[in-house]
Amino acid sequence: MKKVEHIGIAVKNFSEANALYYKLLGVEPYKTEYVESEGVNTSFFRAGDTKIELLEATNPDSAIAKFIEKRGEGIHHIAFEVEDIVAEMERLKQDGFVLLNEQPKKGADNRLVCFVHPKSANGVLVELTQEIK
Amino acid sequence: MKKVEHIGIAVKNFSEANALYYKLLGVEPYKTEYVESEGVNTSFFRAGDTKIELLEATNPDSAIAKFIEKRGEGIHHIAFEVEDIVAEMERLKQDGFVLLNEQPKKGADNRLVCFVHPKSANGVLVELTQEIK
Repeated sequence: MKKVEHIGIAVKNFSEANALYYKLLGVEPYKTEYVESEGVNTSFFRAGDTKIELLEATNPDSAIAKFIEKRGEGIHHIAFEVEDIVAEMERLKQDGFVLLNEQPKKGADNRLVCFVHPKSANGVLVELTQEIK
Repeated sequence: MKKVEHIGIAVKNFSEANALYYKLLGVEPYKTEYVESEGVNTSFFRAGDTKIELLEATNPDSAIAKFIEKRGEGIHHIAFEVEDIVAEMERLKQDGFVLLNEQPKKGADNRLVCFVHPKSANGVLVELTQEIK
């Protein structure tokens, strides 16, 4: 894992949360993106060498909607930058980690992603992410 | 806020969690520290320009013990590096954020810290942290 690429935060109200994190962090989101496959609106704030990603569900079947229903708003996942997502997925599987998708999938921000089950990592939803070049 | 200084993760079993995050991240913790005032054992892993901090409660009154009792293991807080913690606390108070301590307190890793109430930040426990020079 090269670094923490971003931290994902599940929010109920996208515009209110964007305004609040602008006040908190002192920077505006550098982009917002609708990810249809995940049913989420996303916004990204730079914080040094990493990013804060806000996630709002756009439909009740979205994983973000279910997360908020169960646990309320809050930190949803940590994404680690990797150079070779397929190799890293293979390494983790062999080390006993449970992956939530067998193949990398297209995520926000022009990236391939794979999630590791929170049960594999002390309750933390871990994302592996590799930039699409 | 200059950057994400670390991400804190609440764990039940310190040695098992340290072994697991070593496997996940591919690096060993660069330090472990007992913080008596908070009732926690802590360990720190480098991940690029930020850190992962594992937190284990050492007594049942610790905030980490209460967090795990209520929500289970998982991501506990995000800590942002600031240059002047007193000025940043004042700025946030004036912007309507609720602080959990009125004065900076001594945290792990030779740092002054202040926590922002999760209700102020979409369910996220935000830590401000300034290195003690």
